[in-house]
Amino acid sequence: MSVKVAINGYGTIGKRVADAVSCQKDMEIVGVTKTKPDFEAKLAVRRGYKLYAAIPERVEVFEKAGVPVEGTIEDLIQNADVVIDCSPGKVGAENKEKYYEKAGIKAIFQGGEKKDVAEVSFNALANYEKAVGKRYVRVVSCNTTGLTRLLYMIKQNFGIKKVRATMIRRVVDPKEDKKGLVNGIMPNPIALPSHHGPDVQTVLDVDITTVAFKVPTTIMHVHALNIELEKDAKPEDVVEVLKQEPRIMLVSSEDGFTSTAKVIEYARELRLRYDLFENVVWEDSIAIVDNELYLTQAVHQEAIVVPENIDAIRAMFELADKEESMKITNETLDIGKFQL
Amino acid sequence: MSVKVAINGYGTIGKRVADAVSCQKDMEIVGVTKTKPDFEAKLAVRRGYKLYAAIPERVEVFEKAGVPVEGTIEDLIQNADVVIDCSPGKVGAENKEKYYEKAGIKAIFQGGEKKDVAEVSFNALANYEKAVGKRYVRVVSCNTTGLTRLLYMIKQNFGIKKVRATMIRRVVDPKEDKKGLVNGIMPNPIALPSHHGPDVQTVLDVDITTVAFKVPTTIMHVHALNIELEKDAKPEDVVEVLKQEPRIMLVSSEDGFTSTAKVIEYARELRLRYDLFENVVWEDSIAIVDNELYLTQAVHQEAIVVPENIDAIRAMFELADKEESMKITNETLDIGKFQL
Amino acid sequence: MSVKVAINGYGTIGKRVADAVSCQKDMEIVGVTKTKPDFEAKLAVRRGYKLYAAIPERVEVFEKAGVPVEGTIEDLIQNADVVIDCSPGKVGAENKEKYYEKAGIKAIFQGGEKKDVAEVSFNALANYEKAVGKRYVRVVSCNTTGLTRLLYMIKQNFGIKKVRATMIRRVVDPKEDKKGLVNGIMPNPIALPSHHGPDVQTVLDVDITTVAFKVPTTIMHVHALNIELEKDAKPEDVVEVLKQEPRIMLVSSEDGFTSTAKVIEYARELRLRYDLFENVVWEDSIAIVDNELYLTQAVHQEAIVVPENIDAIRAMFELADKEESMKITNETLDIGKFQL
Amino acid sequence: MSVKVAINGYGTIGKRVADAVSCQKDMEIVGVTKTKPDFEAKLAVRRGYKLYAAIPERVEVFEKAGVPVEGTIEDLIQNADVVIDCSPGKVGAENKEKYYEKAGIKAIFQGGEKKDVAEVSFNALANYEKAVGKRYVRVVSCNTTGLTRLLYMIKQNFGIKKVRATMIRRVVDPKEDKKGLVNGIMPNPIALPSHHGPDVQTVLDVDITTVAFKVPTTIMHVHALNIELEKDAKPEDVVEVLKQEPRIMLVSSEDGFTSTAKVIEYARELRLRYDLFENVVWEDSIAIVDNELYLTQAVHQEAIVVPENIDAIRAMFELADKEESMKITNETLDIGKFQL
Ligand SMILES: NC(=O)c1ccc[n+]([C@@H]2O[C@H](COP(=O)([O-])OP(=O)(O)OC[C@H]3O[C@@H](n4cnc5c(N)ncnc54)[C@H](O)[C@@H]3O)[C@@H](O)[C@H]2O)c1
Ligand SMILES: NC(=O)c1ccc[n+]([C@@H]2O[C@H](COP(=O)([O-])OP(=O)(O)OC[C@H]3O[C@@H](n4cnc5c(N)ncnc54)[C@H](O)[C@@H]3O)[C@@H](O)[C@H]2O)c1
Ligand SMILES: NC(=O)c1ccc[n+]([C@@H]2O[C@H](COP(=O)([O-])OP(=O)(O)OC[C@H]3O[C@@H](n4cnc5c(N)ncnc54)[C@H](O)[C@@H]3O)[C@@H](O)[C@H]2O)c1
Ligand SMILES: NC(=O)c1ccc[n+]([C@@H]2O[C@H](COP(=O)([O-])OP(=O)(O)OC[C@H]3O[C@@H](n4cnc5c(N)ncnc54)[C@H](O)[C@@H]3O)[C@@H](O)[C@H]2O)c1
Repeated sequence: MSVKVAINGYGTIGKRVADAVSCQKDMEIVGVTKTKPDFEAKLAVRRGYKLYAAIPERVEVFEKAGVPVEGTIEDLIQNADVVIDCSPGKVGAENKEKYYEKAGIKAIFQGGEKKDVAEVSFNALANYEKAVGKRYVRVVSCNTTGLTRLLYMIKQNFGIKKVRATMIRRVVDPKEDKKGLVNGIMPNPIALPSHHGPDVQTVLDVDITTVAFKVPTTIMHVHALNIELEKDAKPEDVVEVLKQEPRIMLVSSEDGFTSTAKVIEYARELRLRYDLFENVVWEDSIAIVDNELYLTQAVHQEAIVVPENIDAIRAMFELADKEESMKITNETLDIGKFQL
Repeated sequence: MSVKVAINGYGTIGKRVADAVSCQKDMEIVGVTKTKPDFEAKLAVRRGYKLYAAIPERVEVFEKAGVPVEGTIEDLIQNADVVIDCSPGKVGAENKEKYYEKAGIKAIFQGGEKKDVAEVSFNALANYEKAVGKRYVRVVSCNTTGLTRLLYMIKQNFGIKKVRATMIRRVVDPKEDKKGLVNGIMPNPIALPSHHGPDVQTVLDVDITTVAFKVPTTIMHVHALNIELEKDAKPEDVVEVLKQEPRIMLVSSEDGFTSTAKVIEYARELRLRYDLFENVVWEDSIAIVDNELYLTQAVHQEAIVVPENIDAIRAMFELADKEESMKITNETLDIGKFQL
Repeated sequence: MSVKVAINGYGTIGKRVADAVSCQKDMEIVGVTKTKPDFEAKLAVRRGYKLYAAIPERVEVFEKAGVPVEGTIEDLIQNADVVIDCSPGKVGAENKEKYYEKAGIKAIFQGGEKKDVAEVSFNALANYEKAVGKRYVRVVSCNTTGLTRLLYMIKQNFGIKKVRATMIRRVVDPKEDKKGLVNGIMPNPIALPSHHGPDVQTVLDVDITTVAFKVPTTIMHVHALNIELEKDAKPEDVVEVLKQEPRIMLVSSEDGFTSTAKVIEYARELRLRYDLFENVVWEDSIAIVDNELYLTQAVHQEAIVVPENIDAIRAMFELADKEESMKITNETLDIGKFQL
Repeated sequence: MSVKVAINGYGTIGKRVADAVSCQKDMEIVGVTKTKPDFEAKLAVRRGYKLYAAIPERVEVFEKAGVPVEGTIEDLIQNADVVIDCSPGKVGAENKEKYYEKAGIKAIFQGGEKKDVAEVSFNALANYEKAVGKRYVRVVSCNTTGLTRLLYMIKQNFGIKKVRATMIRRVVDPKEDKKGLVNGIMPNPIALPSHHGPDVQTVLDVDITTVAFKVPTTIMHVHALNIELEKDAKPEDVVEVLKQEPRIMLVSSEDGFTSTAKVIEYARELRLRYDLFENVVWEDSIAIVDNELYLTQAVHQEAIVVPENIDAIRAMFELADKEESMKITNETLDIGKFQL
């Protein structure tokens, strides 16, 4: 069986998920939607995706621009088994009500939606099983995905008493040219703790408190983590454990990885769009002080949730169990192959 | 008695300290040094400061540029009781050996020097008494000063078991145009914990672990603090305590302080060079979770150490006790007057 | 006679104009408006300005926040002779229709408005006389003011055949923390030539073509100018001419002015808010190639229009002729005093 | 015959040229050099390139880091027909003297070298023939290459009386994390005109005056051009001509290309490392005013010189004439295929 997948919102996340789906044998893209006939729309067509109008009234706009669509989102989901909603935050919930509910289609939502948009919030490592057979699943945000993967590995191996995380976030994605913060640091939110902790708890049972900031960079988030462990551990034990998980990549300042700028320079050599599906942990940041683990990781916000979307599909359609699904996803996306 | 003060290195810190000294009745500037006849040198002359060459061989360079000097650093310290060394990091130690030792003059060093350059590391609130009568004193760095002030207040009032601090640092000062990090986040250092914790411990006895990052902004550092308290406390108790200390200013998002950009916009209304001698703590960031205090503060790196330099002089020359000195410094520099 | 001035919109421009008016003997501020009780509103009150609600329905919001207003914009303009509208672009035209027309009050608008909001577009040097006795005057934008001042001086002294200007604009003001362009260069507009040329022509008769870009900086605009002269000139002649005009300041790389970062560092020493009311021209950028003058200048967007607002009031109320008004404005604002 | 190519300096330019050479049938990479065993060195090995030490004394450093080298630059050039020197600016001239002269090897230098390092400065479109059979060739810089390609096309088709170009340059490459300009605009050089004009004249006979600035962005340079034409032309004629040249890509704001951020977002979909070998000209910026052509283009500094290096090899070894070489290079690198 090949699951028919529709992408609603072919933007930063949507285009990556579309390509990742196309690499799988057990699923296929039946169409993608755009709201405007811009270069992303034209590229979708060049890539061979069937293009639909996300907003039915705009069909004409596409035609005028010489980028004809095959129909609207409503037409698209007729032919699909599942829609991956990659529209901007909050819009997914509207799309659910407007289209997905009545079409009776399964849907995956992204981290910009509130958790109650779906039956379950999802991270492949942490709670694959919870999504099995479900109709509505939400893949948690980039920051939450990055935190969860790492904390899952630590929890499984050392036990976690408490996590304190400081998140230094890229203010906007690289393609953005209207919004931003040009010179400054923004506590976001100002009121502590931030919502990221509770969001992690939708997928992983862990005591966590988070604080978050936005800074004027576009390429990656960085997380400074403090983790109180249940079991004794030495830095090399932690390294050992993290090396086992393909979705976590270790880098080191010895190799010249002095900042996220260097990490992305490396990524540019590896995959189109310099996608880093893996968490990037600085091996030399791993330290234990009073049995508290300190660690710094970087997260490529545009890419990290992509494999989780693939696994979510497999879980929802019961195509594979966790281990098998993650293995296939990793292989098809070359995840875990670029550890130096 | 008026203590005769020489400023060696009229740069970012030096020019501010010079002006702050000039506001005091018990001390006066007898001269400042520069290495080059640039606009800062010309401004020093316009301000009425006697200009000397920091590097004796460069006297001629000044003359050629039409900015005559009164002599060299060696001449300057002949007429001074104390030199405040505001040269770039590590250069202070060289200046000490080359000039201050043999001239038998007292000296204050800045945070870019190693702690052993001086007999004591200094923060007015935390250890004023330790500098009394000393010959060599080091005012700790901007980040350390910011941390120490805050932690001192918390420790005095609630007791501190442990501090975990994440420091998000401006990568360069606003005037810098050759160095930087343009798009990225740099763990700095990568190996955890950072040296900032031990630096705090040179002035305050507290259990602290720090991690630090550089981000592409010029205006302020931001500290995300987690403080395990000894006594129970409510957020309003912490607010109450911090409000008592003039060198700490509370701001709130309700007033529109959503980022360091807004804090500096406010500062531009208050003092020349938009100097914020005060720690800036977001009142609405103060939270207590499991008896751990969370709090976010911003530090104006160019200005925060200025009052400490003034107090250090008073301590070294036994001009006043801690309370009196801080009171005079605060009054003359309008510290604590701008709480909204 | 003291002209009673109301400021509608106490933001970046409004607060500066308010303070500049307060420095004059022949005019006074009778009140300023804000839409929100944020720190700028509180500062207005601290400065001694009477605060009014720019949007009548919001009076309550101010009261709830403990920042009572004296009334609304409608009350304010009852007591004023002229309102300086410093509201965001396009809002001035709405305010005119809603309030100023029926109140019969004179009004000055800023550069964010279309030219037809007023009877005349204004630049003190270029066309002071045109505003004499007028009811509605528009002070042209920061970029246009900067271009006009410079071109006026060149035209008067050497004649101008044609101007080609490239404008490299700061993307947002320093206080902005939501909008921006973080990493990139934006042709703005993309279609050439830009509207800046025609805007210059509203105040100065000159053949000019402009192109414009936005870049990720907050502090100053930069203009790269190419000016075909009518008369022969040598670079030193141009320097000579520009030195005569107090509203133009010459800087040189020899003094360390290597970028706008250094220019602002200098400005921070001079005036509160580091306001540069003067055009800043790099003396060593002045070159003549094939009788075309090349020249680079920087414009402090937040401050440059402030003196023009003052002069506009004098013209509208016939308080002084051009020469006299500019002289008083210059003296009261220390314009022309900081040439190194 | 397959020309054996050595890359001396596997950095930003070197790694791209290496991969481009590998796509050709008539040449092959025999080895690349690095000065340090960092991630770029490790990637070179992963890519299958033989690694050599650029600095002979450092062989041991590589060994210690577990990245053994095959030998030194001296060994490498024994086995090569031509060395492409991609070392940092000015180092190429030293390498020439130290190694290439005595080895009797042909060499290509990059734009960071002075023009007299080579017999001829090179741009494929403009002066391919001049490099035929030569021993030392310098491929001009990214900015000069971008200017030259465009001006060549305009000159051939419309004739050029005079060019005035303003260059808004990315301050550092994306991987850089120590240098930069964080908030400001830097005239660079301040003294006008800039050296870029004369550099264009090393490859194309044209009257050109240039001015240049650095701004805080990493991704692309932008050129604002004013070109006095000899023949009459309409914007659509210019579009027509530029569309003929595969190394020039036209983009339009209608497709959403509102800034260099969007251009790079597009490039990320096309080639690894988001390399844009093509000039990117905004079609809607093309305007004619008084028979002067206005036009804005963006240049991806890291990639634009890559095809020119390939063509330079063919010219030096007389492997093909201009048309044939450019055709092969274009085809193998997919140049000209991504015009929307
Ligand atoms: N960009 C990230 O860093 C990131 C990371 C993880 C999760 N997410 C989440 O992914 C989702 C998508 O974010 P993105 O960054 O890809 O945004 P984006 O703006 O790049 O793409 C959104 C796409 O949705 C389309 N769209 C707009 N309105 C629509 C509508 N009514 N119906 C359908 N499509 C519509 C837009 O045309 C656009 O192509 C959000 O929930 C976001 O929070 C984003
Ligand atoms: N800028 C900050 O954020 C900051 C904050 C706190 C502490 N500090 C510390 O203050 C000290 C000064 O830093 P700064 O930011 O003012 O640097 P700066 O570069 O702005 O100024 C240094 C000055 O020293 C002069 N100088 C250079 N060599 C000299 C020499 N051999 N002898 C005497 N003077 C010399 C330079 O001309 C310059 O005027 C450093 O120790 C630094 O770590 C800086
Ligand atoms: N900032 C600059 O660089 C600059 C330079 C020259 C000219 N200008 C022009 O000056 C004007 C003001 O710009 P600014 O930068 O000071 O903006 P700003 O956003 O800093 O200030 C605008 C002020 O107007 C107030 N306001 C909002 N809505 C209002 C309304 N309906 N009625 C009255 N006041 C209202 C806001 O509260 C704010 O205080 C614009 O026309 C702008 O184009 C700005
Ligand atoms: N980066 C650009 O935007 C760009 C564009 C066009 C031309 N160029 C020119 O290309 C050349 C290379 O620049 P880059 O940006 O690739 O620099 P880079 O710093 O990215 O790479 C330079 C490489 O040379 C190596 N190197 C250092 N010293 C060496 C030595 N003594 N011998 C041999 N190799 C040495 C370094 O290890 C590094 O790998 C320069 O001439 C530069 O001006 C650069």
